[in-house]
Amino acid sequence: MSESAIYLDHNATTPVLPEVVDAMLPYLREGYGNPSSAHVFGRVAREAVDEARGRVAMLIGCDAHEILFTSGGTESNNLAIRGTTEARPERRHVVTSAIEHPAVAAPCAWLERHGWDVTRVGVDGDGRVRPDAAALAMRDDTALVTIMHANNETGVLQPVAEVARAARERGAVAHTDAAQSVGKIPITVRSLGVDLLSVAGHKLYAPKGVGALYVRRDTILRPFALGAGHERGLRPGTENVASIVGLGVACERAARDLAAEAARVRALRDELWERLLASVPGLALNGHPTERLPNTLSVRFPGVPGTAVLEAAPSVAASTGSACHDGYQEPPAVIVAMGVPPPDALGAVRLTLGRGTTGADIERAAAALALAWRSLVAQGSAR
Amino acid sequence: MSESAIYLDHNATTPVLPEVVDAMLPYLREGYGNPSSAHVFGRVAREAVDEARGRVAMLIGCDAHEILFTSGGTESNNLAIRGTTEARPERRHVVTSAIEHPAVAAPCAWLERHGWDVTRVGVDGDGRVRPDAAALAMRDDTALVTIMHANNETGVLQPVAEVARAARERGAVAHTDAAQSVGKIPITVRSLGVDLLSVAGHKLYAPKGVGALYVRRDTILRPFALGAGHERGLRPGTENVASIVGLGVACERAARDLAAEAARVRALRDELWERLLASVPGLALNGHPTERLPNTLSVRFPGVPGTAVLEAAPSVAASTGSACHDGYQEPPAVIVAMGVPPPDALGAVRLTLGRGTTGADIERAAAALALAWRSLVAQGSAR
Repeated sequence: MSESAIYLDHNATTPVLPEVVDAMLPYLREGYGNPSSAHVFGRVAREAVDEARGRVAMLIGCDAHEILFTSGGTESNNLAIRGTTEARPERRHVVTSAIEHPAVAAPCAWLERHGWDVTRVGVDGDGRVRPDAAALAMRDDTALVTIMHANNETGVLQPVAEVARAARERGAVAHTDAAQSVGKIPITVRSLGVDLLSVAGHKLYAPKGVGALYVRRDTILRPFALGAGHERGLRPGTENVASIVGLGVACERAARDLAAEAARVRALRDELWERLLASVPGLALNGHPTERLPNTLSVRFPGVPGTAVLEAAPSVAASTGSACHDGYQEPPAVIVAMGVPPPDALGAVRLTLGRGTTGADIERAAAALALAWRSLVAQGSAR
Repeated sequence: MSESAIYLDHNATTPVLPEVVDAMLPYLREGYGNPSSAHVFGRVAREAVDEARGRVAMLIGCDAHEILFTSGGTESNNLAIRGTTEARPERRHVVTSAIEHPAVAAPCAWLERHGWDVTRVGVDGDGRVRPDAAALAMRDDTALVTIMHANNETGVLQPVAEVARAARERGAVAHTDAAQSVGKIPITVRSLGVDLLSVAGHKLYAPKGVGALYVRRDTILRPFALGAGHERGLRPGTENVASIVGLGVACERAARDLAAEAARVRALRDELWERLLASVPGLALNGHPTERLPNTLSVRFPGVPGTAVLEAAPSVAASTGSACHDGYQEPPAVIVAMGVPPPDALGAVRLTLGRGTTGADIERAAAALALAWRSLVAQGSAR
């Protein structure tokens, strides 16, 4: 594909593990039955889906019947948010954070347009929601509290357990979008204390187009999409058997390798930071220095937009989190929400490591980024 | 898997074509980028999605930008129905048929629970909606008319073009669920005259978990799931690149082989009917004798439930369309809607052929089904 480019964009999407592809292939070839069919083709597919359900459940410490399969993190979030609020129309309030992914922020905005009150709790300078602020935002008519587990831009971990405890005390349902954290750090739904938790397959080395929603037993939820009675009547549509099998194997591998891989990637991530800091005076870190995903490094280059740095370093595949609207570059909202002045926030670059990242990659990427920054600064001062 | 079972359940799901799997594999392996990423990994994925969009468009005769990718037929139907009615809240009426798939019937029932009027047009003894009855059901406040193109149980083709013309005259949006017909018979959205048309990948030899919605340019539609701005802001979530590529190739192959394959399968289907009729006196055909999908044969065995026939013929993998509720066997609703008495409708068996079906399969299946029926009748008369 691109021999020379170093992939440091694992928070955008991950490669599919070879053993995940291998596990999927039989269900793309001979095992093509519809799990709803009563005949032998259907039974084979049904058993594969059930086995995968157990593997996903194992990774996050729940029972298999508490896992629903979806088409991905976005659908899981929509099902959690719309399904909870539709089930509890007598409660008209939702608490969320100011730094959610659009897959949570947009359904919350929809609720607001349709008569719900939505409170968005801000973050501190480290990019963390303060649990006391979240608790204060809750009311007796709060139907749902939805705070992400790890931020996609900064990797900062949010105090989900404390927030969920406060939500429970108010009788509110606690949801967390764990798309970025599942498979990267140990997670058990029991210790988080949440009722609903979203999983995105393609963030943990499973294919795109598959995800899961943990639904704690006895949680009252309505389906979002409507149709036939798949997934206990909560998620209609013929099951995506091959990708579900892939998600199961990816979860099994994540559970097996998690501790060692997190330590390895954290060391490389910290080396990348040290190398960049040594060659880019004034480089700043976005987010909490330790309460972060081990694979995520979000930095701000001084005096130069992050998009310019990445364009000048095409051997590094990473992202900025900033969006271009009408030709005008907007800084990443998550960084601005932390109190960083917008001109400084434009310097943000997100570097996210993964299973394939090597020490040589880190050395090359640090050199390329530093060189790009220096040449941009030199061009600027020459003008 | 099951060497000896003959797969006659292609309306439930189809095998994935080997060339479709081959086309997907590079995007499950090295081509893992996120199409939203600006770097080289992202561009490769974006180009693959765009190429697939053109291939799907080609099969149904529309422009590439009129195709949205979804997670399957159920999501396409939900997006069409909910997205249209949310966009037109001043109109409070929907016209549909009495024989829709649950993926259409359930969203329509949701609308009814939320204040919309829903008119369900019945079918005649051949299983067809009468276009004049559909036109009469339309009102000045009809937002949406949604009538399936081919029925999943009987294969009967519905008069979508006539219905869509009447809908246009009323200013209503015309949708058709074409999950069963796309790839089996020639379809152009222009000659059907619809504004929205749903495609399900796994019914036309693409994998499960991917589908499409044709949205005629200038059709006003709101997104159903909410999140980031993928698919022109109408369908959020990271694109399921590999499966989208697979859908594109499946559509290309369908376009190439459609005429020859339809003729081949129709001849086998008619041979199956003749063989069964010769050995099962009183066997009846469900649905119109000619205005049917070429691959679908829905019959009623006399005096014996269809489920019993299929249990007694385990070498034939087919379905009955009947559902078991609380231990009580309910006849297929679609057959009952045609005016067949419920006890007779319990005898229904759906036999649906596909690319892999051979003449030898038909001979074996006919013999096995006839033997099963005869032995059941003999057991019954022996009691």
